[in-house]
Amino acid sequence: MKVSRRGLLGGGAAVAGVGGAFVAGRTSSPATADVANVGGGQPAFPFRGTHQAGVVTPAQERLHFAAFDLTTDSRDDVVALLQAWTDAAERMTQGEGAGPVGPTEGAANLPPDDTGEAIGLPPSGLTITFGFGPGFFERLGLDDRKPAALADLPHFPGDTLDPARSGGDLCVQACAQDPQVAVHAVRNLARIGFGAVAVRWSQLGFGRTSSTSTTQSTPRNLFGFKDGTANVKAEEDAALEEHVWVQPGDDGGDWLAGGSYLVARRINMTIEVWDRQPLEDQEGFVGRTKAGGAPLSGGQESTEPDFTMPGSDGPVIPEDAHVRVVHPSENDGIRMLRPGYNFVDGSNALGGLDAGLFFIAFVRDPGKQFVPVMNRMATTDALVEYLRFTSSALFAVPPGAGPGEYVGQALLA
Amino acid sequence: MKVSRRGLLGGGAAVAGVGGAFVAGRTSSPATADVANVGGGQPAFPFRGTHQAGVVTPAQERLHFAAFDLTTDSRDDVVALLQAWTDAAERMTQGEGAGPVGPTEGAANLPPDDTGEAIGLPPSGLTITFGFGPGFFERLGLDDRKPAALADLPHFPGDTLDPARSGGDLCVQACAQDPQVAVHAVRNLARIGFGAVAVRWSQLGFGRTSSTSTTQSTPRNLFGFKDGTANVKAEEDAALEEHVWVQPGDDGGDWLAGGSYLVARRINMTIEVWDRQPLEDQEGFVGRTKAGGAPLSGGQESTEPDFTMPGSDGPVIPEDAHVRVVHPSENDGIRMLRPGYNFVDGSNALGGLDAGLFFIAFVRDPGKQFVPVMNRMATTDALVEYLRFTSSALFAVPPGAGPGEYVGQALLA
Ligand code: HEM
Ligand code: HEM
Repeated sequence: MKVSRRGLLGGGAAVAGVGGAFVAGRTSSPATADVANVGGGQPAFPFRGTHQAGVVTPAQERLHFAAFDLTTDSRDDVVALLQAWTDAAERMTQGEGAGPVGPTEGAANLPPDDTGEAIGLPPSGLTITFGFGPGFFERLGLDDRKPAALADLPHFPGDTLDPARSGGDLCVQACAQDPQVAVHAVRNLARIGFGAVAVRWSQLGFGRTSSTSTTQSTPRNLFGFKDGTANVKAEEDAALEEHVWVQPGDDGGDWLAGGSYLVARRINMTIEVWDRQPLEDQEGFVGRTKAGGAPLSGGQESTEPDFTMPGSDGPVIPEDAHVRVVHPSENDGIRMLRPGYNFVDGSNALGGLDAGLFFIAFVRDPGKQFVPVMNRMATTDALVEYLRFTSSALFAVPPGAGPGEYVGQALLA
Repeated sequence: MKVSRRGLLGGGAAVAGVGGAFVAGRTSSPATADVANVGGGQPAFPFRGTHQAGVVTPAQERLHFAAFDLTTDSRDDVVALLQAWTDAAERMTQGEGAGPVGPTEGAANLPPDDTGEAIGLPPSGLTITFGFGPGFFERLGLDDRKPAALADLPHFPGDTLDPARSGGDLCVQACAQDPQVAVHAVRNLARIGFGAVAVRWSQLGFGRTSSTSTTQSTPRNLFGFKDGTANVKAEEDAALEEHVWVQPGDDGGDWLAGGSYLVARRINMTIEVWDRQPLEDQEGFVGRTKAGGAPLSGGQESTEPDFTMPGSDGPVIPEDAHVRVVHPSENDGIRMLRPGYNFVDGSNALGGLDAGLFFIAFVRDPGKQFVPVMNRMATTDALVEYLRFTSSALFAVPPGAGPGEYVGQALLA
């Protein structure tokens, strides 16, 4: 007699603790609308809305980012993919499995429709954000719908990019408080995409480098400095419209209004060299104190820097200090929303840590915002001596899906 | 006039929030002895004791593991290194900076003696565990003190190891609830070791795959199954003496008694292939249910498997099921303590996730415990079809340092 799996499951499901409460997927957990702070909590963010979640959501602690290439040029296949991804993403962000049946139910002779490693875990603040790269439009014959701003990023001075982890036709940004939940999301979306897309490259981020909400404390990047202080914050409604969200009248605004552009740059830090620099020099390169993050011109973390204040030898905030080089006052008022992540990918051949900052910026127009500031930084910023740009990508992030819609529907329908 | 860094620091330190309370390093936090569960908390574990922390400590959520090679053959240099590492490790596990002066104090024209990215973070359950590889003894002319059990691990059938991330003369295992704290620890120890050691390879683990204490729930590995169920647990005193801690009469017991051996194996999973296997097959490969982790012979997660129970087609727990192949009853009673971690290191060239399980086992004698079970697994285990062993290393883990001692003192003094 063959003991049926369902019979055994009865036994298994009776076990107390973590694994007890799921049947069709993960423990279900009601969606909490407008959760302001996921600091220690494990809430669910709504998946649907005017904007995609994961842009102005208060930055979660962990990231799994994946870039995909299309393996089909059929628009129908891609519509089916985006429908399936939208369904699965909605489920997973609400703490459920990727598919309707889950990892341990359904026919025993079929693969489970969820991979299972997130069984019993709460939603963990998971957001899943989708984007389309330049190649998406070319491959699908949608060039006439491609905004001019979605041109490939130019080569910047000093770039040493690895083409194998740059670019991509689509991207998925999964952020969560628990890395197991973010990894689970990317893995299951990749699995659902089999036949239409293949992973081109992916990146884990272990700690946020940025605060994106006034409710959050400012974390530190691997140079040891506070990062995110002068970020565009989720609460700055007017600034978001001006600097982050694509507007109806913008190029591509017919389908991209309410969306944004995501710039990703994997930036290695030569941290062993950095660590040998005197504190005073490190602070001069950044333009802020290491301890509290105040501008070198004084005050507190939130004080505006005073670039005119003289020091003993030129201005107290040096001309080539990072926060000066990239500051809006030196860049025609340009701002961006920067929810980046620290990464360590083991060691390099020289015994240094393969570590740095996975820079992410959301902007309304990359050509007008990211490109000029990046160019200025690449040529005049003191930090650059301690950086290596190893990956680069750009994606258009469509607006959020309304009820019954799929992500990107205004472009593809 | 040059504004002094200390003056500015006054301003910075007045800022409310995370960065406020440190002066000489991280926020100080009293050591809490015998913290039983670091699940959600952020306690400090004592660094000194009979055994090193990080072996029977309830497994923390995140790992940064680094293997080092000696760049000196001077025993004096190595004694100085171990003294400095012991000091720094004690500080960091108590939530302080790596050095006495910290990341933002001391002479402004000298590099800070802590890298700063953990300023303001609590101890986060950090443990730092040191080990010595076979090469340590050869390089330092200590062959006569090298236990026979510290031979290089043999090649196992199917091994496809990357030599660049195998082996090592020393290891540091840093585990914490917060990855930033674990990464900070390894980075600062590498920095302190400059001139005596260089990082050979390192590995991040994002989620524990194992419970090592009866106070912990059982997490899941990337096959989606509960892992750690039948682990040797911290509370099993007799089993720890028998299977984990080196005893005074053992080979090397003159300096290694109270210590253990750490086996590290980076095991890639072909998860895309695994995910296409029917649930029933996955459960047959493991020998337990995916949902609750009960043996296929029935009962609950904690029920002992019954290998004699017949199914429709052979025993209900197949002959080649992992938990059967490695079970003590089939291996002369051999057990091990297995606090492994899930890892994802981006993607491989084929678009699959470079993901799997960073297996760690602590054993009293690797040759008598790990080697025979690994051999049996490599040749007869159904799981192996979905695994690739990509890294392997073995270290002797000396006992804990008492007050005023450094780690490894009984060997080197
Ligand atoms: C690893 C590389 C980088 C590091 C370590 C770094 C670090 C920092 C730090 C410490 C701050 C001050 C805190 C804050 O206001 O967030 C800052 C601000 C800023 N960074 Fe970066 N950054 C990096 C790359 C970039 C890149 C590539 C860009 C864009 C091209 C950029 C644009 C900005 C902007 C716009 C600000 C705000 C300036 C202000 O308004 O005061 N950063 N960065
Ligand atoms: C990626 C590779 C591996 C996976 C996915 C895996 C998975 C599992 C799972 C799911 C269990 C049952 C839960 C538990 O009791 O912890 C288990 C048990 C066990 N595994 Fe593994 N394992 C792997 C590698 C290894 C290796 C390399 C060894 C040692 C050579 C090993 C030795 C054991 C032992 C001794 C048990 C406990 C068996 C018992 O007493 O019932 N495993 N493993």
